Amino acid sequence: MSIALTSELESTSKKVNSIINEIIVDGCEPKSLYEASKHLINAGGKRLRPFITLKSCEIVSGGEDSALPVAAAIELLHNFTLIHDDIMDEDTKRRGVPTTHIVWDTPLAIIAGDLLFAKVYESVIRRIDQKIVSPSKMIKILDLLTEAAITICEGQTWDMLYEKRDIISENEYFTMINGKTAALLESSAKVGAIIGGGTNEMVGCLGRFGKYCGLAFQLVDDILGLTSDEETLGKPIGSDIREGKRTLIIVHFLNHAQNEEKAEVLSVLGDKTASWSRISKAIRLIDSRNSIEYTKDYAKKLIDEAKNQLKIFSSSYPKQLLLDLSDYIISRTY
Amino acid sequence: MSIALTSELESTSKKVNSIINEIIVDGCEPKSLYEASKHLINAGGKRLRPFITLKSCEIVSGGEDSALPVAAAIELLHNFTLIHDDIMDEDTKRRGVPTTHIVWDTPLAIIAGDLLFAKVYESVIRRIDQKIVSPSKMIKILDLLTEAAITICEGQTWDMLYEKRDIISENEYFTMINGKTAALLESSAKVGAIIGGGTNEMVGCLGRFGKYCGLAFQLVDDILGLTSDEETLGKPIGSDIREGKRTLIIVHFLNHAQNEEKAEVLSVLGDKTASWSRISKAIRLIDSRNSIEYTKDYAKKLIDEAKNQLKIFSSSYPKQLLLDLSDYIISRTY
Repeated sequence: MSIALTSELESTSKKVNSIINEIIVDGCEPKSLYEASKHLINAGGKRLRPFITLKSCEIVSGGEDSALPVAAAIELLHNFTLIHDDIMDEDTKRRGVPTTHIVWDTPLAIIAGDLLFAKVYESVIRRIDQKIVSPSKMIKILDLLTEAAITICEGQTWDMLYEKRDIISENEYFTMINGKTAALLESSAKVGAIIGGGTNEMVGCLGRFGKYCGLAFQLVDDILGLTSDEETLGKPIGSDIREGKRTLIIVHFLNHAQNEEKAEVLSVLGDKTASWSRISKAIRLIDSRNSIEYTKDYAKKLIDEAKNQLKIFSSSYPKQLLLDLSDYIISRTY
Repeated sequence: MSIALTSELESTSKKVNSIINEIIVDGCEPKSLYEASKHLINAGGKRLRPFITLKSCEIVSGGEDSALPVAAAIELLHNFTLIHDDIMDEDTKRRGVPTTHIVWDTPLAIIAGDLLFAKVYESVIRRIDQKIVSPSKMIKILDLLTEAAITICEGQTWDMLYEKRDIISENEYFTMINGKTAALLESSAKVGAIIGGGTNEMVGCLGRFGKYCGLAFQLVDDILGLTSDEETLGKPIGSDIREGKRTLIIVHFLNHAQNEEKAEVLSVLGDKTASWSRISKAIRLIDSRNSIEYTKDYAKKLIDEAKNQLKIFSSSYPKQLLLDLSDYIISRTY
């Protein structure tokens, strides 16, 4: 990660955390609800999505912090989906800490997610400076956030449905990850650009920048899930395989492997109790079909396409930061 | 129920169902997600909340159907909370049908609820006629819906927390049911009055009318949960006791019973496997302390207070219907 990007991400984190602390105030009652809703937010995260919002606002010459309440809303929306996803996927660790339903229980984690979803709207409605953002622009932003939330619900459902099917096509895979991941990055960029006063063309280009970054981000996530280590990743390696997730790696492998290899990998996919030796054997088989390499190349192409979208903007510091971010997405190790 | 109210509720149902069918279109993909999200809506329900919205709009001289998209949004918000509540309370039946997480599974039911919550906002943002409702009024409505959702989350959490405590006060009980039930009826009335162009005083009175009706509604719900029969109620009798719910009946009983009786009832409260004979013995004990009668009287007082709020309005058909509705709430059998 470039030094400038590191420092700017830190600065975004501080600002976004600070506004989230105003939206979800420590000591609010019922305490367990508010603590549970903030658990994952407090556990860390890189705040990439609010960063995209802020820089998309600045690249179209918007005021530096005018998009901050919406950037916070985006982070709240992201964390709402994480809390519910962890329940649905029965994940026990994220960001190096036990997931919300593990620390509390499933009922409270469901409401904690619901609360964050409501707080998304509160953040936009009550915290945006109405001198900068007109009511009709605010409605446009609320509409985009709502559309993103709906697409995320759809993507998450496809994800679960595909776990029960052996073969899915690349098209189906990309529809799913567009919902699960890319739609929110697309909206993160668009809402920033709208607040900054960007033209429709600018909003469109930044939206596609976010979308392609999001797709690449998910591909890299899929790769790291097989090739990283638990300490770096903050969650167990191979859990995607144990959960039977259809990643692009798996999709490519199942569409290119011979029957015997395919059967071997399918027998581990979705087996929650699969041993590490069976998991690592499956990973070796998958790697022998170049499915990890294929996914890496695909991610690189998506990042090139993302960068292309920024060509309409003249050189500037926020532009450089967005380009740095896209480079980071492809090279990140966690 | 008065003939006029019966016929008007039917008419509201038809209109609200029709707009909900436009918002959640049959055949939308992923099919299971959209089917799950509509399951409880299709199973019935009296549409009391959207009815309050429409009549609160009309009583302040607003156009007959101008509040329809918001009325639909209110019903969606209500059903979102029902789907999640049923998961949290492990309820298996509602409106005479198996609950959403029983027909599908918990993961899909969680997302189906999330989808409905997002559709609340879509309904308001995309379906309100912007010629009738200005952007800043629309934001006011979105703010009220968001505030209601937050209060519902808090109320539902109190509900779960109180299940683990022996004694709660009446104040604590009313804070809980204000969140669980009354906040949404309050908002249902307010948003209707705002769309109809009511003054702040009118919005305030109608909001309190909705709130008191909501509190009374919950008290009657608590009573019916012990005194009705499964076929009429659409869910098992005594399930509140098995779940350990702190109803006003229970609160009153525990604060007035002798130690031995108290211990008897506490031993059944929250015992999910309690036999019907133990449940019915507990109900007899509770009744011997007049706790059911006390709750009935309390509900009646609340309905009187609700009716008082409508005194500022001159006689009209929508006013009569709201008064009929408040009478129905106290006299309903399911």
